[in-house]
Amino acid sequence: MDDIVLETARYGKAEVRVVRIAKDGAEHSIRDLNVSVALSGDQADTHLTGDNAKVLTTDAQKNAVYSLAAEHGISSPEHFALVLVRHFLATCPFISHARIAVEEFAWDRIPGATSRHSFLRLGQETRTALVHGDADGTVSVVSGLKDLVVLNSTDSEFHGFFKDPHTTLPETSDRVLATAVDAAWRHETTTDGWDESYARARAVLLTAFADTYSYSLQQTLYAMGEQLLRQDPGLGEVRLSLPNRHHFAVDLTPFGQKNDNEVFYAADRPYGLIEGTLRRRGASAPGRAWD
Amino acid sequence: MDDIVLETARYGKAEVRVVRIAKDGAEHSIRDLNVSVALSGDQADTHLTGDNAKVLTTDAQKNAVYSLAAEHGISSPEHFALVLVRHFLATCPFISHARIAVEEFAWDRIPGATSRHSFLRLGQETRTALVHGDADGTVSVVSGLKDLVVLNSTDSEFHGFFKDPHTTLPETSDRVLATAVDAAWRHETTTDGWDESYARARAVLLTAFADTYSYSLQQTLYAMGEQLLRQDPGLGEVRLSLPNRHHFAVDLTPFGQKNDNEVFYAADRPYGLIEGTLRRRGASAPGRAWD
Amino acid sequence: MDDIVLETARYGKAEVRVVRIAKDGAEHSIRDLNVSVALSGDQADTHLTGDNAKVLTTDAQKNAVYSLAAEHGISSPEHFALVLVRHFLATCPFISHARIAVEEFAWDRIPGATSRHSFLRLGQETRTALVHGDADGTVSVVSGLKDLVVLNSTDSEFHGFFKDPHTTLPETSDRVLATAVDAAWRHETTTDGWDESYARARAVLLTAFADTYSYSLQQTLYAMGEQLLRQDPGLGEVRLSLPNRHHFAVDLTPFGQKNDNEVFYAADRPYGLIEGTLRRRGASAPGRAWD
Amino acid sequence: MDDIVLETARYGKAEVRVVRIAKDGAEHSIRDLNVSVALSGDQADTHLTGDNAKVLTTDAQKNAVYSLAAEHGISSPEHFALVLVRHFLATCPFISHARIAVEEFAWDRIPGATSRHSFLRLGQETRTALVHGDADGTVSVVSGLKDLVVLNSTDSEFHGFFKDPHTTLPETSDRVLATAVDAAWRHETTTDGWDESYARARAVLLTAFADTYSYSLQQTLYAMGEQLLRQDPGLGEVRLSLPNRHHFAVDLTPFGQKNDNEVFYAADRPYGLIEGTLRRRGASAPGRAWD
Repeated sequence: MDDIVLETARYGKAEVRVVRIAKDGAEHSIRDLNVSVALSGDQADTHLTGDNAKVLTTDAQKNAVYSLAAEHGISSPEHFALVLVRHFLATCPFISHARIAVEEFAWDRIPGATSRHSFLRLGQETRTALVHGDADGTVSVVSGLKDLVVLNSTDSEFHGFFKDPHTTLPETSDRVLATAVDAAWRHETTTDGWDESYARARAVLLTAFADTYSYSLQQTLYAMGEQLLRQDPGLGEVRLSLPNRHHFAVDLTPFGQKNDNEVFYAADRPYGLIEGTLRRRGASAPGRAWD
Repeated sequence: MDDIVLETARYGKAEVRVVRIAKDGAEHSIRDLNVSVALSGDQADTHLTGDNAKVLTTDAQKNAVYSLAAEHGISSPEHFALVLVRHFLATCPFISHARIAVEEFAWDRIPGATSRHSFLRLGQETRTALVHGDADGTVSVVSGLKDLVVLNSTDSEFHGFFKDPHTTLPETSDRVLATAVDAAWRHETTTDGWDESYARARAVLLTAFADTYSYSLQQTLYAMGEQLLRQDPGLGEVRLSLPNRHHFAVDLTPFGQKNDNEVFYAADRPYGLIEGTLRRRGASAPGRAWD
Repeated sequence: MDDIVLETARYGKAEVRVVRIAKDGAEHSIRDLNVSVALSGDQADTHLTGDNAKVLTTDAQKNAVYSLAAEHGISSPEHFALVLVRHFLATCPFISHARIAVEEFAWDRIPGATSRHSFLRLGQETRTALVHGDADGTVSVVSGLKDLVVLNSTDSEFHGFFKDPHTTLPETSDRVLATAVDAAWRHETTTDGWDESYARARAVLLTAFADTYSYSLQQTLYAMGEQLLRQDPGLGEVRLSLPNRHHFAVDLTPFGQKNDNEVFYAADRPYGLIEGTLRRRGASAPGRAWD
Repeated sequence: MDDIVLETARYGKAEVRVVRIAKDGAEHSIRDLNVSVALSGDQADTHLTGDNAKVLTTDAQKNAVYSLAAEHGISSPEHFALVLVRHFLATCPFISHARIAVEEFAWDRIPGATSRHSFLRLGQETRTALVHGDADGTVSVVSGLKDLVVLNSTDSEFHGFFKDPHTTLPETSDRVLATAVDAAWRHETTTDGWDESYARARAVLLTAFADTYSYSLQQTLYAMGEQLLRQDPGLGEVRLSLPNRHHFAVDLTPFGQKNDNEVFYAADRPYGLIEGTLRRRGASAPGRAWD
């Protein structure tokens, strides 16, 4: 039986939805998170024999998320994830590693409302945080966002590419470039200003996308990553995954019309997918930060 | 065989994704629609014998959407739907009724960008339009929105309800009230200002939700519908469907903590669902407007 | 204020997930439902004033679903929905109408397993039931299914259609025909054999799709509806909604290959959508059965 | 500028939907795949300067999927992925690594149909394959499945777990155990019998789940992985991700009823998530096989 080994294992409560309201008199504010906990350590017994003495139930993990949200509030996804990491490592001697993944959904105040406790859920972009911590106190923090959908209606060309026998795509000097940005960046240090750091990163991703004259989505990806790293020396690495949301100019010639890149069919599948990692020279090793 | 009749039939191309860019020099603007066409009329032959002489292909319907978007531009979902309705009724003698359903996805300019052709997709709310037209020139127009997610963190009570043997819910004088607004309103007349009309309707739905002190979601629904009809005498009817997105205050007493309505579990299913139709007395009959 | 009226209203608990295990010694069986309750009646007070004395909470409705599942078991979606309808009408004097919508997810025993309590969830098709009941004892029952995905790889032609200026589709004498069947049929009477009735209806829908040589999806729709009604005189009406899941033969000529309808691109959007209602002459009026 | 480096990059066409019909006279058969291509190699130019001379367009990659499906047929996801890997490595001198990810959707013949070209899409489980290849000829093959939903209605206990201050879960000696199996296994060698290998693996995962008396989902996970590895010496490693799809026994005591584990609420979120990797001692190093 010992010819098979349990190489890695982790477990936890996934997708704990916690909404935290903070009240300053009649002025309320809101944070809305989806928290996933994953713990690892000495888990051989439960796997091999069903002895659960070293299992902290995922139900208790869920309870801890709510209890710590009450006690500490939620000042940012990253800060709350760090609080949770420290909590789980302190709680159980048999837990040697904790991983907290957070999605945050943004809300704004309802425009035009008199009340200060009324909120409107924003956008389809989701803010993310991924925090790992070890029993020895080491932590890693990755911030990010996903589903930030952007489009340039010009200033994008695509030509000069390699032609193999399956290449039929015409070259173009004017196309729509659209993507749903999925980006994450690894911090070299912790900060007190996670929200401000996030706001700056999001802003630079948007303007880098908008103001890069593009000859390929790869080039745009690189520009976004580079500008992200340049604007904050505390970042060591960025990973970007950019689906090319194809917008095909519709051929209107059968109907006696021309199409000066004004009418497009927005395709679902298939799509190009461009992925890349940029790293600052001398950045620390990531360890498990991205797992 | 004549004991079975084809009572109703309609067919068309669904979910035609069309993105229309308008260009004023370097200043671009964008409209992003999902258009579904459904035509009806004399369709017995194709159903009963497979004779397609009276079938306008759904492929041609799709082509028409693109061709007319090029020719007319897209000034609003409602206007474009009306253009399509008239087109299909004029094209085919055997088509006696056309139904156009539109979803519109909102974009804004990318904040901070220099370029005037860079856009950011907004929100998760979708604007909708449903337009019907008959060969005799009759048209109906319904405007709407869906997935407008809003939340009040206080000023909501729920008590005094009927108690049957299955009632275990405690009464409360303070709860979170959250919903994803799905609303549609029927116009009595057409207008040149569809976008302005929509903006006003959306604004009043938001403020009615925010500033109604609520004793039930039903009461809030009625307030939203009533204020919508009052602000625009051109509207005859409004339909609202409001899922009660339950936010349950977490019981923290096992952990020695209290929860002054600050920490909530946002539940997915099941959910309350409140639906209602409000009509202005004297409004025209809806006919097929909502089909 | 009395110029605006609450024309219709209904409310209830939606998507109550109930799994009911029945045990005959070591032999277990399972029914897995998603139940949505909607009640209507004298609901003016809660809408207009927030007085909830005539509101049966949606929480109590949820509890009733579980309580009645325990008491009566679940012998079929239709039977359980009828039990619920009668229960809600009997519970509350101010409820004059109840609507129960059920989705059922199918499970089978795990093949090869020794245990008689192990199950594998089947298919992506969902069985549905929609039952309405009035205080006067009138009930209507609609059974159905959705997401039954089927495909014929030949014996489908499409030609002889009307040509307008936007028609560019080539005629074809051999194409793939695929759809996701969404069908529902209205019973004229109740039965003790809902499961058997469903099994027969599903079987005839499948064979009618498979064995109809098709000149249009409309023709296939009619054949499916007609054979459904013919096989069971207790059915009065059937509604079918068939998306045409286009499978486009890929043009391989640029690569020096031919494609004898063997390689297809399965498209997502747009898609044709064919909808029709067939009724048996002399069938009862549907009333609210389809609402 | 050289303080920032492009550490990794890959790109390709994702989600190419290809349906391949094979015809033996009137007897047809079908394979239905979703193929994602990702290529890597010397990609610096396009990222840094927008020079695309070393970019094989994702459009050409898509074309190749269809062209090779026509030429070679699709005998299994793994075999087809291997064909594609070799093709892309042979096509472009600047491509040093190819990654092909495949999802396969299962179809069966329509029961009761006369025709031999009519198919019914099965299940919600998806078969997967992930194949990597290097320019030096090295390949790795991972087979798998996801969304295989299974449930045991008894023979599952959960007790003896660690109690921290947040632990409130009662211990139980009888519960429902349900999960959606996501499993993948790495082959040490290639085979001609990919379909047979898959069928055996699927069968052993099902019976291991069903016939393991469970004291924790971790224990069940280990049993599934262990039996998978034992039944096929050609497998070196298996990864399992098992969400604990909680089925909570409903408390019926307020209604004077008892619940002998017969009525359950099937919860969506949050859920436990158990993940583990089992490896055969002496198995080869995975390299990039799982990336």
